[in-house]
Amino acid sequence: MLKDLKISGLVAASALVLGGLPALAQEAAPAAVAVETPTDMVFIMNSLIMMLGGILVFWMAAGFAMLEAGLVRSKNVTMQLLKNVSMFSLACFAYYIIGYSIMYPGDDWTIAGIFGKFGTAALEAVGLTRDAADAYDYASTSSDFFFQVMFCATAASIVSGTVAERIKLWPFLVFTLVLAIAIYPVQGSWKWGGGFLDEAGFLDFAGSTLVHSVGGWAALTGALIVGPRLGKYKDGRVTAFPGSNLPLALLGTFILWMGWFGFNGASQLALSSVGDAADVGRVMANTNAAAVGGAIAALILTQVMFKKVDLTMVLNGALAGLVSITAEPLTPGLGSATLIGAVGGALVVFLVPLLDKFKIDDVVGAIPVHLGAGIWGTLAVVFTNPDASLFVQLKGIVIIGLFVIVTSAIAWLIIKAVMGLRPSAEDEINGLDKSELGMEAYPEFTNR
Amino acid sequence: MLKDLKISGLVAASALVLGGLPALAQEAAPAAVAVETPTDMVFIMNSLIMMLGGILVFWMAAGFAMLEAGLVRSKNVTMQLLKNVSMFSLACFAYYIIGYSIMYPGDDWTIAGIFGKFGTAALEAVGLTRDAADAYDYASTSSDFFFQVMFCATAASIVSGTVAERIKLWPFLVFTLVLAIAIYPVQGSWKWGGGFLDEAGFLDFAGSTLVHSVGGWAALTGALIVGPRLGKYKDGRVTAFPGSNLPLALLGTFILWMGWFGFNGASQLALSSVGDAADVGRVMANTNAAAVGGAIAALILTQVMFKKVDLTMVLNGALAGLVSITAEPLTPGLGSATLIGAVGGALVVFLVPLLDKFKIDDVVGAIPVHLGAGIWGTLAVVFTNPDASLFVQLKGIVIIGLFVIVTSAIAWLIIKAVMGLRPSAEDEINGLDKSELGMEAYPEFTNR
Amino acid sequence: MLKDLKISGLVAASALVLGGLPALAQEAAPAAVAVETPTDMVFIMNSLIMMLGGILVFWMAAGFAMLEAGLVRSKNVTMQLLKNVSMFSLACFAYYIIGYSIMYPGDDWTIAGIFGKFGTAALEAVGLTRDAADAYDYASTSSDFFFQVMFCATAASIVSGTVAERIKLWPFLVFTLVLAIAIYPVQGSWKWGGGFLDEAGFLDFAGSTLVHSVGGWAALTGALIVGPRLGKYKDGRVTAFPGSNLPLALLGTFILWMGWFGFNGASQLALSSVGDAADVGRVMANTNAAAVGGAIAALILTQVMFKKVDLTMVLNGALAGLVSITAEPLTPGLGSATLIGAVGGALVVFLVPLLDKFKIDDVVGAIPVHLGAGIWGTLAVVFTNPDASLFVQLKGIVIIGLFVIVTSAIAWLIIKAVMGLRPSAEDEINGLDKSELGMEAYPEFTNR
Repeated sequence: MLKDLKISGLVAASALVLGGLPALAQEAAPAAVAVETPTDMVFIMNSLIMMLGGILVFWMAAGFAMLEAGLVRSKNVTMQLLKNVSMFSLACFAYYIIGYSIMYPGDDWTIAGIFGKFGTAALEAVGLTRDAADAYDYASTSSDFFFQVMFCATAASIVSGTVAERIKLWPFLVFTLVLAIAIYPVQGSWKWGGGFLDEAGFLDFAGSTLVHSVGGWAALTGALIVGPRLGKYKDGRVTAFPGSNLPLALLGTFILWMGWFGFNGASQLALSSVGDAADVGRVMANTNAAAVGGAIAALILTQVMFKKVDLTMVLNGALAGLVSITAEPLTPGLGSATLIGAVGGALVVFLVPLLDKFKIDDVVGAIPVHLGAGIWGTLAVVFTNPDASLFVQLKGIVIIGLFVIVTSAIAWLIIKAVMGLRPSAEDEINGLDKSELGMEAYPEFTNR
Repeated sequence: MLKDLKISGLVAASALVLGGLPALAQEAAPAAVAVETPTDMVFIMNSLIMMLGGILVFWMAAGFAMLEAGLVRSKNVTMQLLKNVSMFSLACFAYYIIGYSIMYPGDDWTIAGIFGKFGTAALEAVGLTRDAADAYDYASTSSDFFFQVMFCATAASIVSGTVAERIKLWPFLVFTLVLAIAIYPVQGSWKWGGGFLDEAGFLDFAGSTLVHSVGGWAALTGALIVGPRLGKYKDGRVTAFPGSNLPLALLGTFILWMGWFGFNGASQLALSSVGDAADVGRVMANTNAAAVGGAIAALILTQVMFKKVDLTMVLNGALAGLVSITAEPLTPGLGSATLIGAVGGALVVFLVPLLDKFKIDDVVGAIPVHLGAGIWGTLAVVFTNPDASLFVQLKGIVIIGLFVIVTSAIAWLIIKAVMGLRPSAEDEINGLDKSELGMEAYPEFTNR
Repeated sequence: MLKDLKISGLVAASALVLGGLPALAQEAAPAAVAVETPTDMVFIMNSLIMMLGGILVFWMAAGFAMLEAGLVRSKNVTMQLLKNVSMFSLACFAYYIIGYSIMYPGDDWTIAGIFGKFGTAALEAVGLTRDAADAYDYASTSSDFFFQVMFCATAASIVSGTVAERIKLWPFLVFTLVLAIAIYPVQGSWKWGGGFLDEAGFLDFAGSTLVHSVGGWAALTGALIVGPRLGKYKDGRVTAFPGSNLPLALLGTFILWMGWFGFNGASQLALSSVGDAADVGRVMANTNAAAVGGAIAALILTQVMFKKVDLTMVLNGALAGLVSITAEPLTPGLGSATLIGAVGGALVVFLVPLLDKFKIDDVVGAIPVHLGAGIWGTLAVVFTNPDASLFVQLKGIVIIGLFVIVTSAIAWLIIKAVMGLRPSAEDEINGLDKSELGMEAYPEFTNR
């Protein structure tokens, strides 16, 4: 994203001109001049949009937790909650310790350079002065870090939903650490860190590929290696395991939707020029339009195909719309954004049963939403952004896909060998809450 | 709202003056001048407040969904969730396609002019320059659209709670479309689009009438035409159908309360002058005070009248306080705002049983909250805003009320004739979740 | 906080200089100058950060309500929800009526001066002009009031969780009023109102002591005077009463975490200079790091000590991390912030069983989180802020602690004598929802 930065604000500010002063007028008549954004305000406003973005993307962690808690069976809810809060915390910690330095190495992209920054993710000195600020970037590093750390946590959050209900706590958390320390930041550096994919012209505004597909590939690899839940695919039949609390699933979806305005909007990384103010608004309006398109597509398709609307499909349709627009939320108009989102929503309706056909057990539908729509969104950039090349977009998708598949598979397999991934069959049947945690999510409610 | 725009920021910026320059001083001594808000910052800050407002008003959709999911019986929860997310999506889509152009027609208020804008709700070109921006308004159209589209969705959201538990999905969604395409934007244009009510001096800062009463009238008309739930009024008695999940109802109320800071605060439509910064803060403080007043009034009244406090009344009291202050959140002081809200909260306590007396079945109390307090709030403008005329306020209430009643009734009746509104008695008794959707909200919990 | 205000923005603005104008150049060549933050923007940006902070701290009220609703037994959930919304409303009202004037008395710190402001908490006149604004402070009073009123409500919220499930509604609400009218604002004035603790150099950036410990001391005093729940400590054993809805507890925690970015971030009280933009970002990044540290500490400790992770400990660990960093979220680096939070999280793991040993029944763990970590955080200031004195920090903790203990005890005891605190044993066993309110939170779910 740093590379995509609109610098008009900065340029405007540094080119500040007081034209046509009546220099000799003794009466010193007041002269109206158009003063552009002052330098300080460039720094302040760009920092502000990233702080707001960071808060909103943080909020997405709650969205994932609610969505997943709503879609798993009640006997695994406590575990799912615990995984979400622990994973978020570990991902933030890992990204601070080393991930941020790997992803944004500056000019110091050597092993020594990066590891020299171990645990030093930079914040400016307290009470930064404007002169010192000139040595920094167009915005405060602290607000940039705050924003970026939440992105890393988001990528990690995608995995937990897919492999829910049949993976033990600690193996899952170890995988999260690997993802946040290495997998996410290394591939992220290729584009947002100014690496070879960025130089090749790969476009991914806020991370359809860099965040969502990455989570999706890691989830897919995990689902394959962990295997399906007991009883899910038996005698050639798919057994439905209905979610235990649908209001939470809807709440989670709306939280994610809200957070996405920060995820995409603040990925403009600037709010210091007239152009930024119009662009960020455009990004937010398009983000909403795509979610709307995805939800409506799933609404209509499930009615037509199954003769009854499926709420979880509509929710995943909205999320798929959001993922689809994330690679390019700026250049489309509202109509194109709606369409791009609608295709994403439709994808979900077709991919969910397809995964079941391959006996890939994705508890919350994260693979269709984040991987399926992530790929689609990355390709769809070519429809509205004239700078995009279909070949380069494909190249980015494939390279990052292969990288994540290989590294995730290695990580999953090592963890499996060392710690084991699954609980015993008995423990899985009794539910992870009782067997592994000894704490039920709804001790007074369940009737089963 | 556009008409209410405080333009002091713009005026200040364009009158930017560099006074008293010591033009002939050879030593060119530094001269301190008070530079006012630069033009760019006016555009940026006004856009920012509307983006923030849009995000917060979006969040209200989650609030309505949680409130309603908490207050219906568990057998209808999935349907209520589905109605909320689908309705929100369809309303956004409809408002983009045509509603926005109808509501803010500019100078082109002809059928041809409006329909010529079909599907074109304007976003600025990407990378707007400051010179091009001059051709635009005081803020980005994209942020304005983002803010306004959420208001339309809010109006639609009000209806779903009232007619919950006994209306089929698709007839309800069709009504939503009619509301968002035509009813809401047409009446909205009369005031916020600069139409005849605006010219007459009708005052409605953020929509006690234009948003909340409109939703309320449509809900009332719907409740009358759809009829009460089976068993609600039997043998001259009112049967209570307790809400299935009160924490969700409280969560929904707090979400709405939070969203209202954007709903009212960002309706200032500007944050680019000293006056705006004080006014928006004032609006937010007053909005909170009114909610507080409404909640306390219901707290005390239910204790005094029924000898025990009623949580749902307190929640609706807070919401009624919020609706009450929406027509004029700026001119009151904190004391007046508290009182205006308290009257709204008291209204709820009296109106809820009154509706039952007339066998009008309003599942969540949306008619007292949004219509009752909406009318009250619109009238209460005269107490604190010297520009308000009681006659004109009444005129606006009556004209918009009649318009919405008539158009809604026609819409409900046509839909009833064409598609039917209600499920079969058996389906209603079994709950819409099982009968119409085949998906339970809490498959593992219910004991009934 | 007012005293801690960074005024660099203001200074920068008033020192605005146009240097080196080529005053005699007849061709009046355009001259580039660096214009700093204009005066208007100082006022606007400072107001904006407090408005955003106010909205986020408001949101914490929902967080407390969800956390507590999730951790009490289902038979007391409605009551807990009602206490939260009523308490919030009464605290806001009381703070407006008189608390704000007591806490920020200006130069008029006399009984007459303060009570002369009864009910007048100042908002600027509508449509403030820039000249009039000069008579005001560096930001709008309305946004300051909006921010501060939410802090008062937060302090009150801390008490309700500790004394849940065995205190009647009205005695509890009366205590809340006393806290908001007198206890909180009086001690608050000693530091943030510019009183003797401020003059002594006591440091508390956003209220580890002034908000969290105050709530914690009041809760501890209440727990001692009200006594434990029936059956909690019987025959020398501690009976666990598991929370009824853990997803709500996690949601509440994430809401509080989100709100804390405003609680701490906006306590900078300024966003109008380069330094502020870097500092506020730093505060937010540190706030997140501390929560992360607290959660990870509890995660690892409960695994090591109890051989299974305890979700509620992890949630309280995150909250304790947040409380710990609140006294000084600015000066630490990310590593120190993580450590400070981790110590807070560890404290919770040790303090929760300790309280049970003393038969102090704290339903949600608010005393370890807000009091334990609040004291720790206030002391930890000395590690990173060179201006802090351990002696003065201790002095502040002890003085405020004694003040709150004594005044709370008096209040609790008077209320007990006049109204009684506890319901009858039968009512408590049946649950407050049925016995006192006649309204169940989950009428269709519970199987007990």
